[in-house]
Amino acid sequence: MSGPADFTHCLLLSGGLDSTTLAAWIVAHHPGEPIDAFTFLYGQKHAVELEAARAVARAFGISHHLVELPAIRGSALTDADRGLPQDRDLANAVGVAPSYVPARNLLFLAHMASIRDANGPGTLWLGVHHDDHTGYPDCRPEFVEAADMAVRFGTQFGLRVAAPFVQWPKAEIIRWGLSHGVRYELTHSCYQGRRPACGVCDTCQARLAAFTAAGATDPIAYER
Amino acid sequence: MSGPADFTHCLLLSGGLDSTTLAAWIVAHHPGEPIDAFTFLYGQKHAVELEAARAVARAFGISHHLVELPAIRGSALTDADRGLPQDRDLANAVGVAPSYVPARNLLFLAHMASIRDANGPGTLWLGVHHDDHTGYPDCRPEFVEAADMAVRFGTQFGLRVAAPFVQWPKAEIIRWGLSHGVRYELTHSCYQGRRPACGVCDTCQARLAAFTAAGATDPIAYER
Repeated sequence: MSGPADFTHCLLLSGGLDSTTLAAWIVAHHPGEPIDAFTFLYGQKHAVELEAARAVARAFGISHHLVELPAIRGSALTDADRGLPQDRDLANAVGVAPSYVPARNLLFLAHMASIRDANGPGTLWLGVHHDDHTGYPDCRPEFVEAADMAVRFGTQFGLRVAAPFVQWPKAEIIRWGLSHGVRYELTHSCYQGRRPACGVCDTCQARLAAFTAAGATDPIAYER
Repeated sequence: MSGPADFTHCLLLSGGLDSTTLAAWIVAHHPGEPIDAFTFLYGQKHAVELEAARAVARAFGISHHLVELPAIRGSALTDADRGLPQDRDLANAVGVAPSYVPARNLLFLAHMASIRDANGPGTLWLGVHHDDHTGYPDCRPEFVEAADMAVRFGTQFGLRVAAPFVQWPKAEIIRWGLSHGVRYELTHSCYQGRRPACGVCDTCQARLAAFTAAGATDPIAYER
C-alpha cells in the first residue's frame, strides 16, 4: 500500500497503442513503482476507447481513474457537424489535423497535475510521438518541454512531464512494444469507435501503416 | 458582432478584486476589443464569488462563461475536513498556503485555452500578483512564463497568457483600480463565502491590509 507522499507515475491512457506501450515503458524502467492511469471523457465520439483503456490497465495491474470533463468543442472527434476524416493522404497532409482537439493534452495534463498534486510527487506521462508533430500542436517537443515547466512551477510538489516517445515514429513504438510483450490486441484506435475498426479513418490508417513499417501484423480486426 | 476568427481577450474572473481590476486593465489597454470572462466552479466553499463575478461582468458589459469542473481536492478551500485558515500572521507566513488549490491556475488556463482555441486567437488574462508568490506556486512569474509557452505551443492559434500584475503588490492593484473607477463594492473575496465578509480569513486579512496600504477604505461590509 503506497502512502500519500509516495512518488507516483501518472499515465495518460487513451487505450490506443501509444499510451499502452508507454505503460509497458514505465513498468520496464521503473519496476515496482506505483502507477495511476487516467482516461478522460470529453465528448469524444469514440468513447469506446474507454473499454480498451480499462482492459489495458487491468492487464498491467495498474489503478485506473476515469475523469469526466465538460465537453470540448471544435474538433472532428467531438462535433456532430464535423465529419470524421477518412481516406486522407496522411503522408502528404499539411496543417492542423481535423481531428486536433483544442488544447486537449494541456487540459489532460492539468487535470492529472491537479489530482496528483493534492497527494504527493510524481511524473505525468504522455504518449505523444513524432508522426503527430505536423497535425497536432500539442504533440510537439516544444509543447512537451513547456508543459513540463508549467507543471513543475505550477504545483506544490514540482511535478514533471515525460514523453519518451516524442521523437519516435509510431513504427518504432510498435517495435519496442512487440519486443516487450505489449498486448496490442487489447488496444483501440479507430476514431469511428468501431469494432472491428473501420480501417479508413486517419488513426486506423496511421496504425496500419505503422504496423507495416514495423514489419508486423496488427492483431485487431478491421472491416476492410 | 465579432466573428469566430476575431482576437478575443479571455479573462479568468473570480469576482475578487485582482481579477476585477484586471477587467478594467484590459478595457483601458485594449478599448473596444472583445472580452470573454470565465468563472469556474470546482467545489470551492466560497462559490458565492460566482455572484460577484456575474455582477462584475455585467458592470463591464462583457460576456461571462461559467465552467463546472470535476471537484478539485487537497485544499482548505475545497475539502470539508480541512478548516479555512484564519487569524494567521500572513506577513510572516512561509511555505505553501493551506488555501493553495492544486494546479488550479494551470487547470483554469487549460480550459480557457481549449474553449478559445476552438474559435480563434486570443490572450488569456490572469490576475496573479506579487503578494501570492510565497504561498501559491501557480502565482509566481516562472509559472506564468511557462504557462504562456505551454499555451502558445499547445494550441492551433498560438494563444498567449498575460499577467500584468504578477510583480505588483496587491495595494498597487487597488491604487491603479481606484484611479480607474473600479467598483470594488461589487467584488467578493472572503474564503468563508460570507456577506458581510468574515474579516479574519486569509483573504479578508490580505484585502483589508492592501486597502490600508493603498491609503483607501474597502467599500464592502465586514462582520468585524
